Amino acid sequence: MNPLPSPADVRAAAERLRGHAHRTPVATSRRVDGETGACVFFKCENLQRMGAFKFRGAFTALSRLADAQRRAGVVAYSSGNHAQAVALAARILDMPATIVMPHDAPRSKVAATLGYGARVVGYDRVTEDRERIGAALAAEHGLTLVPPYDHPDVIAGQGTAALELFEDVDGLDALFVCLGGGGLLAGSALAAEAAAPTCRLFGVEPAAGDDGQRSFRSGEIVHIPTPDTIADGAQTQHLGTLTFPIIRRRVTDIHTVTDAELVDAMRVFASTLKMVVEPTGCLAFAALRRLAPEFAGQRVGVLVSGGNVDLDRYATLLAR
Amino acid sequence: MNPLPSPADVRAAAERLRGHAHRTPVATSRRVDGETGACVFFKCENLQRMGAFKFRGAFTALSRLADAQRRAGVVAYSSGNHAQAVALAARILDMPATIVMPHDAPRSKVAATLGYGARVVGYDRVTEDRERIGAALAAEHGLTLVPPYDHPDVIAGQGTAALELFEDVDGLDALFVCLGGGGLLAGSALAAEAAAPTCRLFGVEPAAGDDGQRSFRSGEIVHIPTPDTIADGAQTQHLGTLTFPIIRRRVTDIHTVTDAELVDAMRVFASTLKMVVEPTGCLAFAALRRLAPEFAGQRVGVLVSGGNVDLDRYATLLAR
Repeated sequence: MNPLPSPADVRAAAERLRGHAHRTPVATSRRVDGETGACVFFKCENLQRMGAFKFRGAFTALSRLADAQRRAGVVAYSSGNHAQAVALAARILDMPATIVMPHDAPRSKVAATLGYGARVVGYDRVTEDRERIGAALAAEHGLTLVPPYDHPDVIAGQGTAALELFEDVDGLDALFVCLGGGGLLAGSALAAEAAAPTCRLFGVEPAAGDDGQRSFRSGEIVHIPTPDTIADGAQTQHLGTLTFPIIRRRVTDIHTVTDAELVDAMRVFASTLKMVVEPTGCLAFAALRRLAPEFAGQRVGVLVSGGNVDLDRYATLLAR
Repeated sequence: MNPLPSPADVRAAAERLRGHAHRTPVATSRRVDGETGACVFFKCENLQRMGAFKFRGAFTALSRLADAQRRAGVVAYSSGNHAQAVALAARILDMPATIVMPHDAPRSKVAATLGYGARVVGYDRVTEDRERIGAALAAEHGLTLVPPYDHPDVIAGQGTAALELFEDVDGLDALFVCLGGGGLLAGSALAAEAAAPTCRLFGVEPAAGDDGQRSFRSGEIVHIPTPDTIADGAQTQHLGTLTFPIIRRRVTDIHTVTDAELVDAMRVFASTLKMVVEPTGCLAFAALRRLAPEFAGQRVGVLVSGGNVDLDRYATLLAR
């Protein structure tokens, strides 16, 4: 098993990402501060390259591969941002990439993945097992599998977003981070250990998939069926064996929000901050909005994880 | 008649606005650069206070009033961003503000204007004349009327957006600016005279309301009926007596774009730049997208004028 990554690994990942990932801006809004009573700092990973924080982890992992691995190339399975992240990182690092995506993946995501120069292998979501396909491709062609969250380099890379926020904003009292498999939250926890020892950390997941909260409170990783939620980036079935212990060690609590709360937060992002944020990217802010009275007068960070959403779907969600 | 403002007035306005207006960010996108062949710099006035550049002109004008005028207060007529701009500037400067708005103005705009502490006076768009109501209120209560574009301080204030862009981005070859009454374009022209003498300037208006283009080419201010376009901030009927000569002196040409081109640009803003931009704010980019081959390899500024659009309307426009 891989060793747990450390706060130093997050700093090393930040060095690797310099000049490749954007140092995304931190947005503020007087209106949001007025409505929440807190002083809120939005870390805008929806403005990251390929539209989500996932680029940080994928690039970090790929940039650490040995020459032989680079030449053979990488494989990943994902219907979401991890696919595009691996494809873009591979293009930058000049390695072949194969992405295993379901036949019914949104065309825009398939097009974006192909646009980054990756090879896309389709599969049937009902009858085939993507992990088996990925493993078979890896074995047959000597490809290195890049997991979406449970990998030390991926976790360290994702942590660089929070690290930048801690560097740019002094004295944060709390940070809200979305939670799927836990890569971003675990990375943020490592960043906080390094750079913000007094900042409380909160994970936020969809109410329909509260495995993270149950795992956190019980001390054992809970597995669930794929949850039914609009937060498609958080439809994971369980935390990782690496992400879980880091989260348990440093995070204060895990909260859940409903899809309706996600849509409300999405509307505030559009109307007040003029930002397009995908449903998963609304998790952290939705939780802060509900819990605002507990954070009155505090300096609170909100990690906005991504902005990749089909426009037709976005329009449907925005319309009341 | 008021004298024409000068480039020095724009610099003076920038000083007045310091600490009150946001210095808005300049956004770039590798994808947009790849698709246009140009190197494009978006000046994001949709992220300005109250969501549009109009705050710059209104605050500049109000901040220059004499004490007696401040005490009596200001009046403006507008169903759009100028209303909110005057209301917010008046609140900051602690003066009373009265806004004349049609009974059928979008509720969100009425609410925002009231939220800034202004008094709203309604009128019937069909049977009543807003200019007469404004003049009557001004005469009766000694209020100072703040026109939306044809005023030297308003023009100078609007020019500060382009001035910031010229300061932040060296060597722009061209700048695209939306055109309604001409306040933003004339102000940008003054800023260019001061700070970017070799940058070519282009105004962009809706095809349905091409009075600016016809005026520019004929040398006489052309009046038209209210044009039918989704660019509600550019539904003006004629250029101003102050804005026109400045535009004629410095601008290279005026282009027009269709509503369909505005929607296409709006979708690119949402999907690629993750930004909410109102239809009028899409004018400049829509023109650049069509004319891109002429600007290959050039450094091109695009003024994104605002982001205030009712979300339901926005959703309808985004959906195909």
